Amino acid sequence: MSKAVQEYLQKNEERLLHKLSDFLAIKSVSTDPEKKDNMEEAVDFLINYMKEIGFDTVERRETGGHPLVYAEYMQAEGAPTALFYGHYDVQPADPYELWETEPFTPTIRDGKIFARGASDDKGQVFMHLAVFEAMMNTEGKLPLNVKVVIEGEEEIGSEHLYSFLHDNQELLKADFSLISDSGMVDKGIPTILYGLKGFTGLELKVRGPGRDLHSGLYGGAVKNPAMALAQLLASMKNEEEVITVPGFYDGVEELPEEERKLMNEAPGEDYPVTTGIPETASEKGYTAKEHTMARPTLEVNGMFGGYQGEGTKTIIPAEATAKLTCRLVPGQDPKDVQDKLVDFINNNTPKGVIVDVKREALSAKAYKVDPGHPLLRKAAESYSEAFGSETVFVRLGGSIPVVETIDSLFGIPVVLLGFGTPEDNLHSPNESFPLEHFAKGMDVLTRFYNNAAVNK
Amino acid sequence: MSKAVQEYLQKNEERLLHKLSDFLAIKSVSTDPEKKDNMEEAVDFLINYMKEIGFDTVERRETGGHPLVYAEYMQAEGAPTALFYGHYDVQPADPYELWETEPFTPTIRDGKIFARGASDDKGQVFMHLAVFEAMMNTEGKLPLNVKVVIEGEEEIGSEHLYSFLHDNQELLKADFSLISDSGMVDKGIPTILYGLKGFTGLELKVRGPGRDLHSGLYGGAVKNPAMALAQLLASMKNEEEVITVPGFYDGVEELPEEERKLMNEAPGEDYPVTTGIPETASEKGYTAKEHTMARPTLEVNGMFGGYQGEGTKTIIPAEATAKLTCRLVPGQDPKDVQDKLVDFINNNTPKGVIVDVKREALSAKAYKVDPGHPLLRKAAESYSEAFGSETVFVRLGGSIPVVETIDSLFGIPVVLLGFGTPEDNLHSPNESFPLEHFAKGMDVLTRFYNNAAVNK
Repeated sequence: MSKAVQEYLQKNEERLLHKLSDFLAIKSVSTDPEKKDNMEEAVDFLINYMKEIGFDTVERRETGGHPLVYAEYMQAEGAPTALFYGHYDVQPADPYELWETEPFTPTIRDGKIFARGASDDKGQVFMHLAVFEAMMNTEGKLPLNVKVVIEGEEEIGSEHLYSFLHDNQELLKADFSLISDSGMVDKGIPTILYGLKGFTGLELKVRGPGRDLHSGLYGGAVKNPAMALAQLLASMKNEEEVITVPGFYDGVEELPEEERKLMNEAPGEDYPVTTGIPETASEKGYTAKEHTMARPTLEVNGMFGGYQGEGTKTIIPAEATAKLTCRLVPGQDPKDVQDKLVDFINNNTPKGVIVDVKREALSAKAYKVDPGHPLLRKAAESYSEAFGSETVFVRLGGSIPVVETIDSLFGIPVVLLGFGTPEDNLHSPNESFPLEHFAKGMDVLTRFYNNAAVNK
Repeated sequence: MSKAVQEYLQKNEERLLHKLSDFLAIKSVSTDPEKKDNMEEAVDFLINYMKEIGFDTVERRETGGHPLVYAEYMQAEGAPTALFYGHYDVQPADPYELWETEPFTPTIRDGKIFARGASDDKGQVFMHLAVFEAMMNTEGKLPLNVKVVIEGEEEIGSEHLYSFLHDNQELLKADFSLISDSGMVDKGIPTILYGLKGFTGLELKVRGPGRDLHSGLYGGAVKNPAMALAQLLASMKNEEEVITVPGFYDGVEELPEEERKLMNEAPGEDYPVTTGIPETASEKGYTAKEHTMARPTLEVNGMFGGYQGEGTKTIIPAEATAKLTCRLVPGQDPKDVQDKLVDFINNNTPKGVIVDVKREALSAKAYKVDPGHPLLRKAAESYSEAFGSETVFVRLGGSIPVVETIDSLFGIPVVLLGFGTPEDNLHSPNESFPLEHFAKGMDVLTRFYNNAAVNK
């Protein structure tokens, strides 16, 4: 364990926060074509910093989209190699008027740093780099080999990252992967994500007449596309929140009693309080925590057809559309589930309408690692030591497609060490990151990199 | 029968068309606050014309909204009294760019007069006035007593008409009512409407969480409001297009075999051809014609919630809304049906969401008169003679609330003599009215007023 590194980080905290602020001030909004120069600024910042730190190789890689930064340090002979992934792009900051301080003028108040990207993911990427800097400047080396991939397209779907990973499997070979792009279940509670859900989706458009029709003159002769859509959607789930699409649950593994216990004991949200719902609604036989963490879901994300204005317009709408996505668990194949949904729609289309299905191209398999894996145990230990609190193991209802890609391409465990909190306002105005997590998180990383270096 | 009147109308056709054009050129768009002066122009036109014709009384009546014109001719001692209703306001003309000629510059081409209001309803109102003019100028009198009500708010809900009718029941006392604000089933086919549907409606908003939620983090804990809405709507109708809301069909009379025959034999649309639907969908046990004409309906007019943009947004929407209207048949009470819908919604709201119901204030009872009523027989006779074709009796799936109001306030039969055609483009660009129907329609009216005068 390195006391020197910790002292260095403490002594340099102010300077490092200034440097972080410089990074956060760069408007690296990947979705905005007018911010191309800002994306370049962020790339330059990373390249300069990593060169400064002393990585052997620091490269800008063209991808066809926003460039990606690759760096490696391979001097730790005999030690394992970590593949660190992060992203330098951020969400757009609008609506600007809802920010209390400028989104790209990082501001410290109430023990937090406020800026777009403070938590997602520039702030967390910066913590790793600061730890590397501290190690190099105190001990002259890193305890293990490190390969760094920082992309600029995470917020727009990581389109070019996947081909980069796919085409550079030899280059990127590592013993495990490390990502800090997630959060803790609550402030101060060390959290290890050991599972993520997969993802698939589709859009269905129910078409009836060629134009909106007078509901009086045609009602009774023409099937109402909005009603047909409602009937189709309703037939996909029963009252017990069980998905009734044949084969949907094929391959889904039973949830072991032990894991259920772990999940239900983990601290979590009181959903009616945090969301305002009157009561929770979960699949029969499962608690809300079990369902969100470990059971597949099917959600209507949007639905529209016909008249949406004030008052009444007595029409039969020409068409009605719904957008559906599913979150998947281990054992489910996204393509297979999508096929089953399409089959179900085709087999259950009401008489008198036609349904067009648009398959969502993005998909991801679920990811899960044994929470007892030695690396996860090491991560938990580092976490608990730094935060002085027991580490919680959770599965996430959300998807991080890069995790599944690394898992399937490289077959290595992915350690998800997130330091964000539920109050960080990711993707929203007033994004922030607690300074305490900045300091303690760097402590966790220092400990973990050292722990992970010990044996292969 | 009056040959003189017919000759007068023929001889004066060009002058009358010019006069009609002057009337149609007035931009009497009731919904547009900037057209108040134009509304006054239309009122003046009607007052001047009816004074010219020689009505005993011609009055402008303030209503609180757009004024209404009332006139009466009561010199036909011993003869019955007709209450003629029409409206001088028109729909807005936009989108202007889709008109081939200016909407308020009446233009004759292809045997039709094109202008906003040509068919609905200024053109048809004008036909009655022209017939009265012809009668007065040839025979010096009308064959029966006539009370005329022409309002200026039909296209915006007739709000002030109803109180006028209600408050002036003595003044408006008549033996029957006559309205020409509808159409024929096809060009050249005399059509008597002997039934109209009633109307009720509501909007339901399903509310779940206080904001859109991440579908991964909350899917499985939070009931999806869009899915809940779909489930609620789907439960209102079964696969056989039968409405499953308890009590919905209470009081609905069985459709006699004879009337079914009449309906199915009447010329009508080939729905897949006219609307583009793959096939019709009607209530089990009823044909499309029977259902549209004589069975109640429940239609989703609009439905919306969540993300409607391109691609995918993985949210659980905070809320989802649907707008519903029903068309009712004799025996159903609009308020009672609305109550039953509200009860059904309250009793079937899925767990985990709240439903807000907004009741539609407008409503109407269905209207139906015995197709064998002597006055309808006289109307049919006049119609067939003028058009040289058999008269068809139909019920309309739509609603004309004034008809139901006259029926319930005055208890007199309402004769619906419409001369429009399905190609008139009511409420759309390029509204028109066939000149042939203008001439033949005035012939029908001349004959009918004379026929109806014969005995009480």
